Amino acid sequence: MQKNLFYSTISARFSLSSRREFNKTFYHKDLIVKKSPTSCLDQIPKDVGKLGFGQNFSDHMVDVVYTDDKGWGAPKIQPISDFRIHPAARALHYGVQLFEGMKAYHGVDGKIRLFRPEMNMLRMKRSAERACLPDFDVEEALKVIDSIVRLEHKFIPKSRNGALYVRPFMLSAEPTMKVAAGGEARWAVLTNPVGSYFKPNDKGVTLLADPGYVRSWKGGVGEFKMGCNYAPTIFVNKAAMKMGCDQVMWLSGENRLVTEAGAMNLFVFWKNEQGEDELITAPVSSGLLLPGVTRDSVIELAKEWNEFKVTERNFTMDELSRAIKEKRVHEFFVSGTAATVLPAQKIIHKDQEKGIDDVLHIDTTGSKFKLHERIFKTITGIQYGEIEREKWQRIVTI
Amino acid sequence: MQKNLFYSTISARFSLSSRREFNKTFYHKDLIVKKSPTSCLDQIPKDVGKLGFGQNFSDHMVDVVYTDDKGWGAPKIQPISDFRIHPAARALHYGVQLFEGMKAYHGVDGKIRLFRPEMNMLRMKRSAERACLPDFDVEEALKVIDSIVRLEHKFIPKSRNGALYVRPFMLSAEPTMKVAAGGEARWAVLTNPVGSYFKPNDKGVTLLADPGYVRSWKGGVGEFKMGCNYAPTIFVNKAAMKMGCDQVMWLSGENRLVTEAGAMNLFVFWKNEQGEDELITAPVSSGLLLPGVTRDSVIELAKEWNEFKVTERNFTMDELSRAIKEKRVHEFFVSGTAATVLPAQKIIHKDQEKGIDDVLHIDTTGSKFKLHERIFKTITGIQYGEIEREKWQRIVTI
Repeated sequence: MQKNLFYSTISARFSLSSRREFNKTFYHKDLIVKKSPTSCLDQIPKDVGKLGFGQNFSDHMVDVVYTDDKGWGAPKIQPISDFRIHPAARALHYGVQLFEGMKAYHGVDGKIRLFRPEMNMLRMKRSAERACLPDFDVEEALKVIDSIVRLEHKFIPKSRNGALYVRPFMLSAEPTMKVAAGGEARWAVLTNPVGSYFKPNDKGVTLLADPGYVRSWKGGVGEFKMGCNYAPTIFVNKAAMKMGCDQVMWLSGENRLVTEAGAMNLFVFWKNEQGEDELITAPVSSGLLLPGVTRDSVIELAKEWNEFKVTERNFTMDELSRAIKEKRVHEFFVSGTAATVLPAQKIIHKDQEKGIDDVLHIDTTGSKFKLHERIFKTITGIQYGEIEREKWQRIVTI
Repeated sequence: MQKNLFYSTISARFSLSSRREFNKTFYHKDLIVKKSPTSCLDQIPKDVGKLGFGQNFSDHMVDVVYTDDKGWGAPKIQPISDFRIHPAARALHYGVQLFEGMKAYHGVDGKIRLFRPEMNMLRMKRSAERACLPDFDVEEALKVIDSIVRLEHKFIPKSRNGALYVRPFMLSAEPTMKVAAGGEARWAVLTNPVGSYFKPNDKGVTLLADPGYVRSWKGGVGEFKMGCNYAPTIFVNKAAMKMGCDQVMWLSGENRLVTEAGAMNLFVFWKNEQGEDELITAPVSSGLLLPGVTRDSVIELAKEWNEFKVTERNFTMDELSRAIKEKRVHEFFVSGTAATVLPAQKIIHKDQEKGIDDVLHIDTTGSKFKLHERIFKTITGIQYGEIEREKWQRIVTI
């Protein structure tokens, strides 16, 4: 008995002292909360339709500091304020940064839910490994996210068209011109009350498909949510918008593999060349696209419904173009946290090398299957607590 | 007369007021200098060999703010201090940032020189256009750079092995989650006293050539000095270092085009398959590599010397490997601002798809031509004022 006590004391002390020396993760129990004396809640539009995306911030943010010698410090929730960061920080010169995006929903039952947030945190860990940023524990991160959502719950729109966008991100704050790993890092979370991308009356978006612009490639980092994947797309989006398109549909490689659209995954529901109804999306195994949480949910639901073939495989712009022209495409839609699913009605297809200059029309919203609407209703139903699916719903208690 | 006066007054007022409304560039004449009351000069190692790269900062920095409504503000030179930047700034989430690198040299004649800095500023403008960051005037930027170099001239090592590294950079400070153009931007300059990469007694670096890791690709942004090109390389460099390599030699595409090594351009001086002595480097027209200032200088000098063929064309790892095995490679070296030129002695060549696992030895330092040494002496001779070449020397008067 005494021996056991001795060992457990030693072990507790050892664990404490090693924890003091180097923290491999931050811990929710160490959370320090410094509340803002004022609130901007009154300045946020009450009309969800006027919220837009990512321009309104709540009162607080999460900030956690990592150093090479001590590991992670205590997570802090504090009033949102400018970062103070050395001007030589690697995040400002070499793009050493990554992020995640998810939402907290105010349910029809008054409960607040996050949708499969552990998938975001697992993806964030994978991004961190690829970016040579430090690791952390998923559940500790989720508990910290719960805390900021709880504190900012008044910012969550009480509407099925709104949510609190949660933006965890990480960056290297190490002040050195060396392109290398290590040094100071930050893990932080911002939250934005946002409206909905989806307007059910819309005919759908128009996409530019032009292999002259490539988002991701074999041997690159297209499968990670690293900041470096986004900067190059701004120029391309501007070019697409000048041509009357809403977003870019990304093609990759000599085969013009269809990979993503905008910053979203994409799905084609078609009659394939064998005459089968099939929901098809590019596989994450290619390394060319982001393993989306909504993407994964669409696939899982469609497989459960078991009404048509569900396929993850590489497919080309040639295949898609032919199918559209042969009127075999029932629906075409993109998927992501911001929009859930969003139909496309038109693809402007340009391929200088192949001499292609096509406009492809897809009557997604006229489809008798109404698959994207069913998916939208099911996923948002789970998000807003109309449909129970415990494994996909993390409830944040106020 | 009265009418003319009327019009010229209107025009002057209009021009003044439009300048006040929107500045398309910042102006050196508006420069505000706030000097640091203390100096860290005493803390900088006196021994150039101990300076390293990018870890010692001088006392001051340049900071210029751009906003959509006013354009560029007045450039400021101020004591180096943390940036205050909104935590949602696009530079921290979507990698919207770019940089340049050049050096100020303390010449053997006591004069301070920048080496072809207008090339860096022109490249910076091109990067800014691709990154959707605002434009600025090259000569105004150079005059601001002259000013910080002049102010920090005591930090320039009085040694042929040292220089003041000058790091202009630009980023989007716009606080929004939208992946889009516009909003607040910063243009800034940091300076670091640095030592030399080049140790003439070194046998040369070892490179890892593995097409499983790809830096740049057709349709991407490999030709721009954007931060996003660097973050993904850190992981790959770590992998290379574990295999005993100093840097990565970047291959691109199915043909394994030889493009760059580390963050530098590369040159092969070989007897080509036609039996001619030839200096070869990949062409910037491919869009796969950075148009380096040192690269351009090596080509221009070699063409002037007119002693062997100088070729810019795509060449493959197959061609290079065969030439090394057939002992046709006289020299292999990389070029960049940090190292000027640096010989390579070994390439570890792995290609899983093709079943290749080779170690290639190059006796660059044993070459009778001593081409890389001659280039090094010529370029550094110009930089340190031993050799006159006015067009490449921008003198900063103290």
